[in-house]
Amino acid sequence: MKSLKVGIIGFGTVGTGVYKVLKSFPNIEIKKIAVKDINKKRDIENFDLSLLTDNPYDIVSNPDIDVVIEVAGGVNPVYDILKTAIQNKKHIVSANKELLAKKGSELFALAKENNVIILYEAAVAGGIPIIMPVKTILSANKITKIAAILNGTTNYILTKMAEQNLSYDVALKQAQELGYAETNPTGDVEGYDAAYKIAILSTISFNKKVDINKIYREGITKITAQDIKSAKALGYRIKLIAMGQLLSDGKIDVRVHPMLVAKKHLLAKVDNATNSIMLSGYPVGDLVFTGAGAGAEPTSSSVAGDILVLASELETTSNPLPQTICRHNEIAEQIDIGDTYNEYYIAINASNNPGTIGIIGTVFGKHNINISTIMQNGINSDNTAEIIVITELGKEFDVQNALKELLKSDGINKIDNLLRVMN
Amino acid sequence: MKSLKVGIIGFGTVGTGVYKVLKSFPNIEIKKIAVKDINKKRDIENFDLSLLTDNPYDIVSNPDIDVVIEVAGGVNPVYDILKTAIQNKKHIVSANKELLAKKGSELFALAKENNVIILYEAAVAGGIPIIMPVKTILSANKITKIAAILNGTTNYILTKMAEQNLSYDVALKQAQELGYAETNPTGDVEGYDAAYKIAILSTISFNKKVDINKIYREGITKITAQDIKSAKALGYRIKLIAMGQLLSDGKIDVRVHPMLVAKKHLLAKVDNATNSIMLSGYPVGDLVFTGAGAGAEPTSSSVAGDILVLASELETTSNPLPQTICRHNEIAEQIDIGDTYNEYYIAINASNNPGTIGIIGTVFGKHNINISTIMQNGINSDNTAEIIVITELGKEFDVQNALKELLKSDGINKIDNLLRVMN
Repeated sequence: MKSLKVGIIGFGTVGTGVYKVLKSFPNIEIKKIAVKDINKKRDIENFDLSLLTDNPYDIVSNPDIDVVIEVAGGVNPVYDILKTAIQNKKHIVSANKELLAKKGSELFALAKENNVIILYEAAVAGGIPIIMPVKTILSANKITKIAAILNGTTNYILTKMAEQNLSYDVALKQAQELGYAETNPTGDVEGYDAAYKIAILSTISFNKKVDINKIYREGITKITAQDIKSAKALGYRIKLIAMGQLLSDGKIDVRVHPMLVAKKHLLAKVDNATNSIMLSGYPVGDLVFTGAGAGAEPTSSSVAGDILVLASELETTSNPLPQTICRHNEIAEQIDIGDTYNEYYIAINASNNPGTIGIIGTVFGKHNINISTIMQNGINSDNTAEIIVITELGKEFDVQNALKELLKSDGINKIDNLLRVMN
Repeated sequence: MKSLKVGIIGFGTVGTGVYKVLKSFPNIEIKKIAVKDINKKRDIENFDLSLLTDNPYDIVSNPDIDVVIEVAGGVNPVYDILKTAIQNKKHIVSANKELLAKKGSELFALAKENNVIILYEAAVAGGIPIIMPVKTILSANKITKIAAILNGTTNYILTKMAEQNLSYDVALKQAQELGYAETNPTGDVEGYDAAYKIAILSTISFNKKVDINKIYREGITKITAQDIKSAKALGYRIKLIAMGQLLSDGKIDVRVHPMLVAKKHLLAKVDNATNSIMLSGYPVGDLVFTGAGAGAEPTSSSVAGDILVLASELETTSNPLPQTICRHNEIAEQIDIGDTYNEYYIAINASNNPGTIGIIGTVFGKHNINISTIMQNGINSDNTAEIIVITELGKEFDVQNALKELLKSDGINKIDNLLRVMN
């Protein structure tokens, strides 16, 4: 058995997890690990300190290394470091969703030029096998839809809000105390993390390069305890859904936003920090993949999986895994959120006057939006009420115009929230 | 692009589905299809009848064919036909769970000798990607447990029994009328089909050859409407579970039997003909894969996936996919059902006498079985009652002995059912 020589860039919890898993495989030789602080105490048994370097170029320029594992995260300085690695003919295994979403095209083109491959199972949904299956065993399918819970932090917060009737702020604070959310939670709660992941997953599923900058993105910070309660009363759970769809005209609809998900839907049953991906295609139908989407151990399963596959392939060929090569030649034509069709949940603060429901119905009708349910949430002390409207399928552009007109109408004070619905 | 030359053995609904999917790929050339009846009318557009042969040896002995797809099913005559194919250096893609469970060792050994590979994603759970992921991207894991719903027919019957309070016989009849169950349903309802699949999946997950003949197997024919009702009342659904476990002493516990599955468990939520596989390992944690486990289209996704992976690999190496090679050198030491530990649901028909519960408690206690719940289901017209006992974890051998002793006790008429419980 030939041994595969590996360098690791990044040695936080994920890097340490990857090291621990890989060192038990006799055909994997860890040659060097790049860290920020060489003197930091490491909690690893029998650890050989001479493996450490604080210069990642010791790895990417090392002629004795076959593969670079990158678990450092972020775009800078990792992008330049990995470009050098590729130019030096090293294969790459990366868990870096932000880098791949923002600089994937450049990296894949450079990898092709240099006859190396980039594997990144760990970049999407942690331990859940999705990248490799889509590129290999599912490759006969025309994939038409992905709907997924790809961010554990937000799913944890939404679960706690629903289970314990908490406000967003309280649930966030609890998640931070328990380590489910970072001190600066923006990347998770505003949907950036999920957007990186759905950009990567949509690109390989639809075989068209999805532009991260054209993904409509909305986080969970505006979800109120009242929204969760209203959703429940109507038979829904609220989830942050990352979605990608291949439309019948070949255009691509990719977005991240909270949705009311019908209770019977499998994604509604995915709680806490768990991730879940529903993928629909022909001929396979609907598949659902569920598991831990983050954490050192699940992530190291995917990183080590990529490494073992590569090691095995390199024993018999110098062109490993041709199916995994990213072809980003075709650029996805992404549609604007205004052009999408959705069912909506709209929470409207209105004065408790007779005729308010009539006004809402009239304005929506004028803009071609059919209402399927209308429900009033009690009456506030200031004689206003929150009215919940659930619509049938309508164009986002029309709905937004209806809401603008509605806000000019008598007795309509404020749109408390607008969420989309998945049945 | 090199083209891969394919022969198909078996041209029923699955074979036809595979043909339709594969013919759209320019690098796949279908050379020959072996059928039973060459004159049967085929509902395929622009079909070239000269592709058909009624002699499968026209395929396996054809020097112009690289890969044989086998979707005929059964052991005879397919086993001999595929042996010839392998001896003639043809790769095999098979959907035949019975053949692989019964003759896998012989076929994989012969394939190794002849430097060809056997792929069989479609043999387990239809369209759900599980074989390839376990062998590739999950290969860094030590897999310790599989619990799965692998038979759509029985899951459909159990779902209908639960939803509509039907007896087994009525639900089976409906399933047969709708095409979910065959006229002779034995292979499904007695658990043979699930046993073949869990034999294959356990073998690759634990890297030890599991003997199909040593798998404990129980079907669903003895489940009554009353069992389903009692399970519901206690917070459970009844599912036919195929299970494989790597025990701490290295022994393997593989079995197929109905179980009470706690309502909150993901497998309890899998309804109708859907399949679902829960796999636990280190470092990945728990994964769940859900999708269509049968049908021409999902199955053809997996067969075509294997073919496309193989085609892609053969462009760069003559030793494709080394990771997928089955190594069955190590034989699993499978434990007997009597040596397993389970929680139990036991339905006991007893005379409605004071002291009956006392007798049950005393006998179970004597055999080291702790009871966690005891519930009586009304009183029958003959002054008997069904008493439901849920036990804590106990050894099957002890439970069986307790039941033998119980049957000799005053007022205990009959053990209506014994099922195991998954929380």
